Amino acid sequence: MTISTAPRRVPFSRRAADLESAPISWLMAQALEVPGLLSLAAGFVDQETLPAAEMVEIAAAVLGDEKSGRDALQYGTTAGDPELRRVLLDRLASDRSPIWSQVGIEDVVLTSGSQQLLYLLAEVLLEDGDIVLVEDPSYFVFMAALESLSTRLVGVECDADGVRPEALDRCLEELHRRGDLGRVKLVYLMTYFQNPTGASLSAERGPRVLQVMRDWQERGLEALVLEDAAYRDLCFPGEAEVPPLFEGQDANETVCYAGSFSKSLAPGLRLGYGIVPTELAETLVRLKSHHDFGTGNLSQQLVLKALQTGMIDSHVEKMRRRYLGKCELLFEVLRAELGDAIELEMPRGGLYLWGRLPEGLDTGLQSRVFARALEEKVLYVPGEICCVNEASPDDPTCRSMRLCYGYPPDEELAEAGRRLARAIASVV
Amino acid sequence: MTISTAPRRVPFSRRAADLESAPISWLMAQALEVPGLLSLAAGFVDQETLPAAEMVEIAAAVLGDEKSGRDALQYGTTAGDPELRRVLLDRLASDRSPIWSQVGIEDVVLTSGSQQLLYLLAEVLLEDGDIVLVEDPSYFVFMAALESLSTRLVGVECDADGVRPEALDRCLEELHRRGDLGRVKLVYLMTYFQNPTGASLSAERGPRVLQVMRDWQERGLEALVLEDAAYRDLCFPGEAEVPPLFEGQDANETVCYAGSFSKSLAPGLRLGYGIVPTELAETLVRLKSHHDFGTGNLSQQLVLKALQTGMIDSHVEKMRRRYLGKCELLFEVLRAELGDAIELEMPRGGLYLWGRLPEGLDTGLQSRVFARALEEKVLYVPGEICCVNEASPDDPTCRSMRLCYGYPPDEELAEAGRRLARAIASVV
Repeated sequence: MTISTAPRRVPFSRRAADLESAPISWLMAQALEVPGLLSLAAGFVDQETLPAAEMVEIAAAVLGDEKSGRDALQYGTTAGDPELRRVLLDRLASDRSPIWSQVGIEDVVLTSGSQQLLYLLAEVLLEDGDIVLVEDPSYFVFMAALESLSTRLVGVECDADGVRPEALDRCLEELHRRGDLGRVKLVYLMTYFQNPTGASLSAERGPRVLQVMRDWQERGLEALVLEDAAYRDLCFPGEAEVPPLFEGQDANETVCYAGSFSKSLAPGLRLGYGIVPTELAETLVRLKSHHDFGTGNLSQQLVLKALQTGMIDSHVEKMRRRYLGKCELLFEVLRAELGDAIELEMPRGGLYLWGRLPEGLDTGLQSRVFARALEEKVLYVPGEICCVNEASPDDPTCRSMRLCYGYPPDEELAEAGRRLARAIASVV
Repeated sequence: MTISTAPRRVPFSRRAADLESAPISWLMAQALEVPGLLSLAAGFVDQETLPAAEMVEIAAAVLGDEKSGRDALQYGTTAGDPELRRVLLDRLASDRSPIWSQVGIEDVVLTSGSQQLLYLLAEVLLEDGDIVLVEDPSYFVFMAALESLSTRLVGVECDADGVRPEALDRCLEELHRRGDLGRVKLVYLMTYFQNPTGASLSAERGPRVLQVMRDWQERGLEALVLEDAAYRDLCFPGEAEVPPLFEGQDANETVCYAGSFSKSLAPGLRLGYGIVPTELAETLVRLKSHHDFGTGNLSQQLVLKALQTGMIDSHVEKMRRRYLGKCELLFEVLRAELGDAIELEMPRGGLYLWGRLPEGLDTGLQSRVFARALEEKVLYVPGEICCVNEASPDDPTCRSMRLCYGYPPDEELAEAGRRLARAIASVV
């Protein structure tokens, strides 16, 4: 807008002043400003297989029936549709763990994507200066949200099998030594095909992580684990299914489980959920009633119908094969063009391939690699954005990059890979 | 869930501890616990006319096209679809006011219902102890949200023509005298068919309210006006259209306008919006990106299509007639049964009829009237819930009730009216 006189100052709260523009916004602006740019940065899902035709039928089934159609268009409850919560629990429950007999729909909160679950949870658990342990590197969007809430992030060492239990233990020991154990309120772990590295917590490590938590809870640790399983459904065909941390707890009181239909069905529905201790669910619902009264009822009914008809299962099967194919395509293009000049580890699912360049090369926003990539019209997420706190230059994350093969069609993906390879080859 | 050992304590933040269970939750629990209860309490929209059949066509048009269907199912931008924001502005713009030439889509933020806009705005403007001026009585859900953010609410006197400009002036004078003028950050006004009283700000008063704001801004007031126009579309047929406060401002920097598609189309889509100063829109989008990345893209595309096809216009026309009919029905049942034992003022639109009982009668949750109503199996919202701060017993709001004629079909509405009349008649 244009105004003729000096504009009045908006009386922002200090909270608002802490809302810095995220580096990812800068990345996205780049994507819009550079015509023809191919993006391996955006974490979007495969555009070609979004189930538009199938959703026409689902929508007709929900809206075409007078009763269910009107109900879907009316207000719902803040916690979300009870039937959808029941169906969701039945779907997740497994004979592997007795925990499921302890969980009821009162422990399930439906949210606007799993992002909203993460945010609500942070708001009800964390105060200024409280500490959140996160994998290092971790999911930059949630880290930015946590920082805007004035919490302190502490990174825990990870490798290809996820967070290292002994590193978690050492980290808590160090915080205990500093007198900060009581300030640790949350341990945030992406257990499946982590954002950004694609690594998953192994079946062998899960119980050891929980044992570390138990040991420290006996020594006064109050923290809950937040298990972010947003990508769990995208397990590549043939990979063994690993039980979630959630199933390893003794009672429904240590691990909060966050899931999403954005990857298994469609992000445009904005539906995620949390399974949390009952007392916490009640508080989350109270806060959510202030935020928005509840997530869109129509989206919920569409997802419920997609679950009931089995449409979502066949879609998920398709997506597992599809993302495996896309991941292999990008992997092979980079391997063929760059050989050992890039270190790549094939993930077992999800949307991200994590690439690491040789020592001495930086991938950051100010780096030569990044500048060359922009010249070649290809975008990636620099590792430095995913670092916990300020990264030291010799941190291997600073020579790494998150490559998302989710969105582009195969030809564009291959072309993006070749462009990236040219950019890297020119500086190696 | 049931657990065998003592549950671990959830380490709630102080913020969470302030999230009291709202009285309305208690009301809703009553509605579930008393079988056969008819509710005049819930602010739901007319169930019978929810446009399910029309939405089948809209959904087929959006999802049936390969490109638009896939786009609707993909992630969108946090601020919301640019085309929808443009169409929305074109729809709202009026020749009456030059302000519209100063407003662009960068000033529009799409949100999960207008409730989310209200909440985001509160979070970016208000700090502990800041002051919000509200009509007395006002919308209890937002007041509860504001109180959970540790703000102070100050009520301003209203009558059938909305907030009284001289009362607003007096209120600011008093705050100035107390040295609190600098803590006033927001003036929250429902200008159309207010929740709970149904009163609207008159065309004559709008400019006077803005003049009071201007005068005090010159004396140091920083506050913005938040104009909540959620019910604006539900103007009864034949009533004169009153321009919004938003159109009376000199530049897009004093009044934030909140609107919604919940009443004009369907609450199950959860789509609302704000039009705010550019700088504020940018900050709201940053905060919203932490909350949920953006409101569901599918809902946005359905609303866009409903606007483009004119479907929403014909639906709104129908709803205006429908709610007038329902309001008259409830009005006449109560008038016929109770005569002067209830004071009723016909609103000019919206969903609420505000009833006032004779002096000495209390309508509160602990009152005989409320107990008798429950015995008769009918529910209303007691005026006391809508009072700003603790109500004094001689406040006329404490002998008033909000009666929502939105949801029930005619026969149920008439029966609810008769039950309520019996309950009141038995104590008058």
